[in-house]
Amino acid sequence: MSVVPTLHGIGVGPGDPELLTIKGVRLIREAGVIFVPAARSGEPSLARSIAAPYIDLEKRVVELIYPTDGRARQMLEDCWDASADTIAKTLQSEPTGVFLTEGDAMIYSTFIYTMEALNRRHPAVNIEIVPGVSSIHAAAAATGVPLATADQRIAILPSDSPETVLRAALGTNDTTVLLKLSSGSESVLDLLDELGLIDHAVWIRRCGQPEQEIVRDVRALRNQRLDYFSLMIVRRPRA
Amino acid sequence: MSVVPTLHGIGVGPGDPELLTIKGVRLIREAGVIFVPAARSGEPSLARSIAAPYIDLEKRVVELIYPTDGRARQMLEDCWDASADTIAKTLQSEPTGVFLTEGDAMIYSTFIYTMEALNRRHPAVNIEIVPGVSSIHAAAAATGVPLATADQRIAILPSDSPETVLRAALGTNDTTVLLKLSSGSESVLDLLDELGLIDHAVWIRRCGQPEQEIVRDVRALRNQRLDYFSLMIVRRPRA
Repeated sequence: MSVVPTLHGIGVGPGDPELLTIKGVRLIREAGVIFVPAARSGEPSLARSIAAPYIDLEKRVVELIYPTDGRARQMLEDCWDASADTIAKTLQSEPTGVFLTEGDAMIYSTFIYTMEALNRRHPAVNIEIVPGVSSIHAAAAATGVPLATADQRIAILPSDSPETVLRAALGTNDTTVLLKLSSGSESVLDLLDELGLIDHAVWIRRCGQPEQEIVRDVRALRNQRLDYFSLMIVRRPRA
Repeated sequence: MSVVPTLHGIGVGPGDPELLTIKGVRLIREAGVIFVPAARSGEPSLARSIAAPYIDLEKRVVELIYPTDGRARQMLEDCWDASADTIAKTLQSEPTGVFLTEGDAMIYSTFIYTMEALNRRHPAVNIEIVPGVSSIHAAAAATGVPLATADQRIAILPSDSPETVLRAALGTNDTTVLLKLSSGSESVLDLLDELGLIDHAVWIRRCGQPEQEIVRDVRALRNQRLDYFSLMIVRRPRA
């Protein structure tokens, strides 16, 4: 009986090790090899540190590089392909692996690129995905601001989207989640002010991590340099 | 030393008991009382059945009624208020409770109404929220369709939203998640056809539950009566 090489992509949640799922923890413990993304060789991996309480010291851990230094798309794709090749090669001798990724595996994650490269280059690798708690849901829980009820609508988009796009999202949705607040936050605050939404926004950074911080009067964010790992939930008052 | 009555709102995930978080399971086990939502008295509670493997047989379970029979908003609000009153009263003698809710606690959940009623009527009750895996993330994992990468945008809305709203969402977002496909599915399919997106949609019902079903050619949904617990992910091809 031959074993099909299988990679489980596991969302390890936003930061608190207790926000891993039971299934994620079980698969980490059962895995022969654990793949973890890092921005540079030797640099700490956030996904690995979140899952650390569940990683046996004897377990084989393979670091994969996903640069965050803003290099050109083609160079990034080369890295994703290299990671896929490493995974496929490793699974030949150790057919059960897990890939750890922050938050949920299918939203703004390095795992998505890896999955696509594996599907393209190594279709014999079986991929199973274990969903996780995304930072968006964790932010709603931490701030107490609901994302939606009943027939309400949600938009999720980067805060440096074009102004017309931001304006449309804020104007037509009950809840708008703005990601990566580090850049363009002044113009976002101006827009919230203009739309009468400045009192209906809450900002959070590093949700679920020890450095977590919540700001409920987002005017205080003006002229601040903001954490890249931050987001804002804007919730229109009900009519 | 007096103990502050505390309610933990716990998202128990979309259906698979293994998709509860470590924290959710711990708090269920530590709780003195477990509140579960049900549509009618004596009716099975989906949230309770998902968490059943972690609920000790001796544990006190209190059923709260959240009607789903389409009654008027005021009557629903009376039910939510009654649930909040029951919770506050119960926590007087048993100060640590959990409230179980399907998926994530802060998106389209009965917990949100309960939390708002508690904040209004019983502000002394301390509320803590434990995020969970929402059916949206679970659907992306089960189908292998990513929600977003890099600077992409997501919309989440009910499939019976006005056509102009659906059209705008599908036209301006990389990924659109359409919820509650049971009603209005023909007009949604017509719209996907018109916008050239019919081949870029996937439908899933009862994600993570034993009855889970995935349809990758959504044309097959025409003239079918669809499960209320279903959703569609529409992902525009990259330019």
